[in-house]
Amino acid sequence: MTKRFQVVGIGNAMVDVLAHAEDAFLAENGVEKGIMQLIDRARGVELYSRIGPAQEMSGGSAANTIAGIAHLGGRTAYVGKVKDDQLGAIFAHDLRAQGAVYETPMAPSDHPDETGRCIVLVTPDGERSMNTYLGVTEFLEPADIDVAMMADAEWIFLEGYRFDGPMSHEAFEKAIGACKAGGGKVSITLSDPFCIDRHRAAFAAMLRDDVDLLFANRAEMLSMYETDDLDAALARAAAEIGIVVCTDSENGAHVLSGGQRWHVPAVPTQIVDATGAGDLFAGGFLWGIAEGHDLETCARMGNIAASEVISHLGARAEADLGALFRQHGVL
Amino acid sequence: MTKRFQVVGIGNAMVDVLAHAEDAFLAENGVEKGIMQLIDRARGVELYSRIGPAQEMSGGSAANTIAGIAHLGGRTAYVGKVKDDQLGAIFAHDLRAQGAVYETPMAPSDHPDETGRCIVLVTPDGERSMNTYLGVTEFLEPADIDVAMMADAEWIFLEGYRFDGPMSHEAFEKAIGACKAGGGKVSITLSDPFCIDRHRAAFAAMLRDDVDLLFANRAEMLSMYETDDLDAALARAAAEIGIVVCTDSENGAHVLSGGQRWHVPAVPTQIVDATGAGDLFAGGFLWGIAEGHDLETCARMGNIAASEVISHLGARAEADLGALFRQHGVL
Repeated sequence: MTKRFQVVGIGNAMVDVLAHAEDAFLAENGVEKGIMQLIDRARGVELYSRIGPAQEMSGGSAANTIAGIAHLGGRTAYVGKVKDDQLGAIFAHDLRAQGAVYETPMAPSDHPDETGRCIVLVTPDGERSMNTYLGVTEFLEPADIDVAMMADAEWIFLEGYRFDGPMSHEAFEKAIGACKAGGGKVSITLSDPFCIDRHRAAFAAMLRDDVDLLFANRAEMLSMYETDDLDAALARAAAEIGIVVCTDSENGAHVLSGGQRWHVPAVPTQIVDATGAGDLFAGGFLWGIAEGHDLETCARMGNIAASEVISHLGARAEADLGALFRQHGVL
Repeated sequence: MTKRFQVVGIGNAMVDVLAHAEDAFLAENGVEKGIMQLIDRARGVELYSRIGPAQEMSGGSAANTIAGIAHLGGRTAYVGKVKDDQLGAIFAHDLRAQGAVYETPMAPSDHPDETGRCIVLVTPDGERSMNTYLGVTEFLEPADIDVAMMADAEWIFLEGYRFDGPMSHEAFEKAIGACKAGGGKVSITLSDPFCIDRHRAAFAAMLRDDVDLLFANRAEMLSMYETDDLDAALARAAAEIGIVVCTDSENGAHVLSGGQRWHVPAVPTQIVDATGAGDLFAGGFLWGIAEGHDLETCARMGNIAASEVISHLGARAEADLGALFRQHGVL
């Protein structure tokens, strides 16, 4: 029987505040380049007061992935918490307008926190440095997980960033249980090497016991397995996880499954804003696998989707990804 | 004595909600192409639910002009009303971050309306169709006018759109009085042919009695003087106004002053989004005049600034306008 959803994603619901900045600005303001830093509200207000004019676009790592799958026409849903405020309405609109189901209850308008936002500073080299005020998205809890939705998903897709919330970790367990009971599979993205440092044991247990498909970039893979040797890390991951996918920036992606290994080169492009590269890679890959394509093709789809999103400002696809897949001969 | 401000603008403070749309979508949803339509909140909510994923950027016609002057390093301030809400904070940030002074009191957070927003639908030809929910910006009133600020301005710049608010019309009178008493001059943009239809007598009286510099595009000029003959309209305007500037899209701009007339060709560019073309023209022109350039050079600066803003999505300048002026040899 066909399941209602090909992929259901769970993660941090965020609105991105995008601004250009020079490297010197990052240094002067204590922003570490190229990574995600969690900031509290006061720091968010202060940093916002220092940056130049900005624009606002819906973001959130897993939400970007799900938006990509919806953009491709996939049957997909997202779970993540916003508040009943203007930014929350923007987040919800953009996801639904793309065709994803999004029904997570909003935190009420009298909640002391606001919808989460991420100040994304894009340097002239296209690298992005993220400063995340989690706001209400930190409070995603088991009650937000609709077990019927999870049971009706071929895949769930978990965002590693959400390991920072203790209630969210329980929410993940609930989602995994319902998904597996319904015969579905579990994918996860490690999200961030520092997040892995904070929760290595929990990640390790989940990878060993629950995960069917792992997404990680080079830095995350090395952090997870505490090694400097990517091949060693990949081998260890592949020993316990059915499908392992590791992105490596301009070096493309590695896929390991069933004793086989593929390398798929990146699609060259002019980098305007690296935000969303990994998210859209996962979106292209998951859509491909849900549509029955082989793993090498899925990785090519992921690379094409990633190259599209880094060619412009913002972390959601703009060009027609399906048309790009056809141009590249993968569809 | 040098005045604190070269230009102080007064207008509708808005956040733009930008989305791409096909012409068929406009037709199906009763959006008239290429113009500004005022919509109420219910219509705004309904239209927003129908459009695709969007991005949010600060807008507002005169605010775009002032942002352009600030971008060029001009001494400038803006007056326009937002609410103490998330979109209001975004509007205020973007203007201040550009270097403009912006101190208009926010409507309190318990005000029944919200910060104004404009749903800008950009069709594949780059034309923009604007759907404006005014929100609290409609309530700009004389109390919001700081007479000391107006007296300390070389120029004030009034946005015709704001004629739709009766209290704002009084606010304009107050600003004009203070500015003139301080030896300053008054510029105005007619904004919109339909707005002129709604308030022709008030516009006519102000042009005759108070205005030193008029900005209008072809359609507005014809509407104002109720004729199909642009030369006739220009002649009538020039008979009562010191400087008349009329933009005419790809045909460039006409400038009339002191019995002389200049035509300055447009700067050719690929139109991505026409939003802000007139606003940035006025910004370039006003900065030029405040810096002491001759009127023909001011119009060239206006055309260059307009060509920059229509080459990308959004109504605020992105490229370095000063550098563009130098490239074009006007600076």
